Amino acid sequence: MDISLVKSRLEQYRSMTERRLDELTMPLPDCLYKSVYTALRYSLLDAGKRIRPALAMEFCRLCGGEAADALDFACAVEMIHTYSLIHDDLPCMDNDDLRRGKPSCHKAFDEATALLAGDALQALAAQTIAQCTALPAERRIMASGELFRLCGIDGMVGGQVIDLESEDKEIGINTLIKMVECKTCALIEAACVMGCAAAGASDTQIAAARRYANEVGLAFQIIDDILDVVGDEKTLGKPIASDADNNKSNYVTLLGLEQAKGVAAIHTDIAKESAAAAFGDEAAFLISFAEYLLERIY
Amino acid sequence: MDISLVKSRLEQYRSMTERRLDELTMPLPDCLYKSVYTALRYSLLDAGKRIRPALAMEFCRLCGGEAADALDFACAVEMIHTYSLIHDDLPCMDNDDLRRGKPSCHKAFDEATALLAGDALQALAAQTIAQCTALPAERRIMASGELFRLCGIDGMVGGQVIDLESEDKEIGINTLIKMVECKTCALIEAACVMGCAAAGASDTQIAAARRYANEVGLAFQIIDDILDVVGDEKTLGKPIASDADNNKSNYVTLLGLEQAKGVAAIHTDIAKESAAAAFGDEAAFLISFAEYLLERIY
Repeated sequence: MDISLVKSRLEQYRSMTERRLDELTMPLPDCLYKSVYTALRYSLLDAGKRIRPALAMEFCRLCGGEAADALDFACAVEMIHTYSLIHDDLPCMDNDDLRRGKPSCHKAFDEATALLAGDALQALAAQTIAQCTALPAERRIMASGELFRLCGIDGMVGGQVIDLESEDKEIGINTLIKMVECKTCALIEAACVMGCAAAGASDTQIAAARRYANEVGLAFQIIDDILDVVGDEKTLGKPIASDADNNKSNYVTLLGLEQAKGVAAIHTDIAKESAAAAFGDEAAFLISFAEYLLERIY
Repeated sequence: MDISLVKSRLEQYRSMTERRLDELTMPLPDCLYKSVYTALRYSLLDAGKRIRPALAMEFCRLCGGEAADALDFACAVEMIHTYSLIHDDLPCMDNDDLRRGKPSCHKAFDEATALLAGDALQALAAQTIAQCTALPAERRIMASGELFRLCGIDGMVGGQVIDLESEDKEIGINTLIKMVECKTCALIEAACVMGCAAAGASDTQIAAARRYANEVGLAFQIIDDILDVVGDEKTLGKPIASDADNNKSNYVTLLGLEQAKGVAAIHTDIAKESAAAAFGDEAAFLISFAEYLLERIY
């Protein structure tokens, strides 16, 4: 694993994303509804590892574009990710007081403001894609279609529903996989495919991106479940074992710690192979990145 | 006013919209998250006058397209309208138990389901526009950009914020106008402009559509405020004077009943003139429709 490549490129993509998100969420001076701008910026900026934006920009580069061509698409994905966290933390959902190491949006502001900040971020994601006029209309509408199919009812939102309805009961591994594919993999897939779209990628490249995203997404969620058990609150920025407190099934509760680690390693291997087959030596970042995620549990 | 033209065409557009919304929200047979489909269909289908879809299709026809060309855009607008109603009714917002004559979404289901149904509808609107491949990519991305700019933080959501922050205090007429332009006019503008976009309209036609939408939107809201005072619960399908109960300023509280009626009439006149100037005799529906809205208070 080339850890310096992973860290330097993640940092490069992160700082590009940070700067652009700041620009895209700047209220006008005479704005009458600054509270929601303040709230969404509170949750959106200086937060998170920006993994999804990094993947969007990297796939754009791999498919022949400049990484920066996918920057606005990358920001749109991150807006969707943040909106989902804000709504997920609300009292009627997971009722989490802490997110990314600070009070969650509805604790820092109030519930109505958090609700509207989430709603506004989802709309802003669509607007940002549409207004990215440096790219042809075909690429923008493809990116928009992918993102909102994958973050909607048959994707991320559907995953939330399965998650909510699985509380306080044992679910099978197949339902868990379906939930993770919806709740976690779908948005990572959107990021990777939107990066491809920004570059006008081939169908083969897009298929490889989907495969990589799904395998990395599964590995990512399993690793997250494992860290929920063995990690510490500081690393995660949220309370440990909050899933277990809610009596939710996850990979560790269903498979046990050792088998969960093994499954995460298998998904990581498939992701790496898929990237290498499609992009050869150029896939170095994707491969090291998958290993980097996995290393957190070893 | 040609009332038969208004009623027959509204009914024609309404039934097209109803059928298409039903198709667009059909869950797959093995769907694991039917609860949210059920909830969003509960709020979306067989509900409302479908005024925004009608305007989208009518502007498409006026700009040289077939009304049906704008059907998916029209459905997208209605999805956004419905999501905003579902979220607006939540306990942390207006806390309304009744909507369109039946229990609001979170009363018929629960808060989490209502939240997710709204989120899903916003995503589905974007997905529906993107997947409407009968229209060129340029027209779809223009429609998407307009809709999400106008329903987002600088449009509909911004209007909600002003509304929430105006509770229990007196606001001036300028703040009220800004609130109505954001909360009500913006989505009507989106509908009209998206209809133009579906037809590949000229800039002049689009400008006329924006003008008409804004004036009809202002008239519509003033009429709604008036009916809140003089109407009856059956006509509106919601409790009378709920704004007054919340100590919110509106056109009637700020201007008085008679002056509010006069202002509604002025906005209606400007809307009619704008439609006639841009579309001549073909504007008959738009003109009669504006008169039809106004007639409810006379």
